[in-house]
Amino acid sequence: MAQRYVRIQTPEGRIYYGLLQLSRSVQLLDAPPWLKGQPTERSLPPDSYKLLAPCAPSKIVAVGKNYTDHAAEMGTPVPSEPLLFLKPPSAAIAHGDAIAYPPQSQQVEYEGELALVIGDRCVQCGPEEAGAKIWGYTIANDVTARDLQKRDGQWTRAKGFDTFCPLGPWIVRELSPGSRLQTFLNDDPQPVQSALVDEMVFPPDVLVSYISQVMTLLPGDVVLTGTPRGVGPLAIGDRTRISIEGIGVLENTVKQRLP
Amino acid sequence: MAQRYVRIQTPEGRIYYGLLQLSRSVQLLDAPPWLKGQPTERSLPPDSYKLLAPCAPSKIVAVGKNYTDHAAEMGTPVPSEPLLFLKPPSAAIAHGDAIAYPPQSQQVEYEGELALVIGDRCVQCGPEEAGAKIWGYTIANDVTARDLQKRDGQWTRAKGFDTFCPLGPWIVRELSPGSRLQTFLNDDPQPVQSALVDEMVFPPDVLVSYISQVMTLLPGDVVLTGTPRGVGPLAIGDRTRISIEGIGVLENTVKQRLP
Repeated sequence: MAQRYVRIQTPEGRIYYGLLQLSRSVQLLDAPPWLKGQPTERSLPPDSYKLLAPCAPSKIVAVGKNYTDHAAEMGTPVPSEPLLFLKPPSAAIAHGDAIAYPPQSQQVEYEGELALVIGDRCVQCGPEEAGAKIWGYTIANDVTARDLQKRDGQWTRAKGFDTFCPLGPWIVRELSPGSRLQTFLNDDPQPVQSALVDEMVFPPDVLVSYISQVMTLLPGDVVLTGTPRGVGPLAIGDRTRISIEGIGVLENTVKQRLP
Repeated sequence: MAQRYVRIQTPEGRIYYGLLQLSRSVQLLDAPPWLKGQPTERSLPPDSYKLLAPCAPSKIVAVGKNYTDHAAEMGTPVPSEPLLFLKPPSAAIAHGDAIAYPPQSQQVEYEGELALVIGDRCVQCGPEEAGAKIWGYTIANDVTARDLQKRDGQWTRAKGFDTFCPLGPWIVRELSPGSRLQTFLNDDPQPVQSALVDEMVFPPDVLVSYISQVMTLLPGDVVLTGTPRGVGPLAIGDRTRISIEGIGVLENTVKQRLP
């Protein structure tokens, strides 16, 4: 099985990067793995830590309409260049954390996505160089208040609420291009989204190259690669499960935001 | 004269917060001032440090069309709610740094703005509480590739290039509402932008309150409050000077971006 890289917090509030073992123990690293963090002799037993989002990005860059069939369901053509937007780092939550449904929206939707984790500073890179700066892969839910997205024009508010970027549960180093992304709601065995990640219009190396022509990407930064067809609404109490073959399953529940 | 809070880097690459003296020496603080940094006995003489952007935000939240006359010049009405967008932290540069004109655009424009620096974690605050979380004030240039802004629809790329957020030169704690914001180009004594900061549609406390209903603001985060009428194009070699009474002057030159 591929190595799983996690970020965790102890009950005392200390934060570590680590390697998740089959026993669910976590072997601690002495730094983020993309900053050459090495395994230490210290291990935390299962249930002695809380999983966090697997990295702490200085920015989360996302791409709109990067699957042809999703662009079609939104009634828009596929862009001729990647369409960039940002989600604030304050939106990131972990596998198992609750998505808070804000009172400003009546239409919060899931968007299952493949997320790239940048390992190296990346400025004006060509696609080949950019591909080499992708340290690993995880899963994201680009949660979106669809009503506010349409009303505001700019997507910042609609996609920027606290908890609107579940990330995880962990990072793997390799991903085969034929991997399938699927989103499930509650206990329904039928996925609401299902696509191969290589059905993307602009593949990961092209996206990272394109972004790096605009803004410097830093180690630990995250790129969301777009969602396929099948986006839809969430209700309080719903549970989303987004699976990508070769990575795992990102699961979150929806709760009402407290005033 | 009001105390001026700066962030500086030594030739060895060490970064400090400090108090700028009239002699241009910097008295070092032992932490960011909004995290209760206290003056130390150490001082750096003039010309022994480089000025940085005066804070290192986890996010830069900006507001569109927050002056009636600028909304009119863009051919759009004033929004009924603040229109939020994000600039990536990688766009921030200091007073005196060069704005890099990217090859993707043929129409890069200046936008002089008042910037707020957040001092305290701010989540779902009312306007009064939000006002108390504003630690200080500085000046920003919300540099914008106007052609890409129109073409992309989302403003992320147009406003997100490296160097597209000059911030500084320093932070002051207080600002009187009648302060005038002016933007000058090169040696022209006539300003291209001139407005009172209290001509804003949504004032600082309302903006911070509104943003905090969406996303958690953290100490050191920056809010750009919008630009008044008079935006216009920059050319390679141009020098922008944005002044706000009671703060100072933020000056930057425009250079061609190196490939």
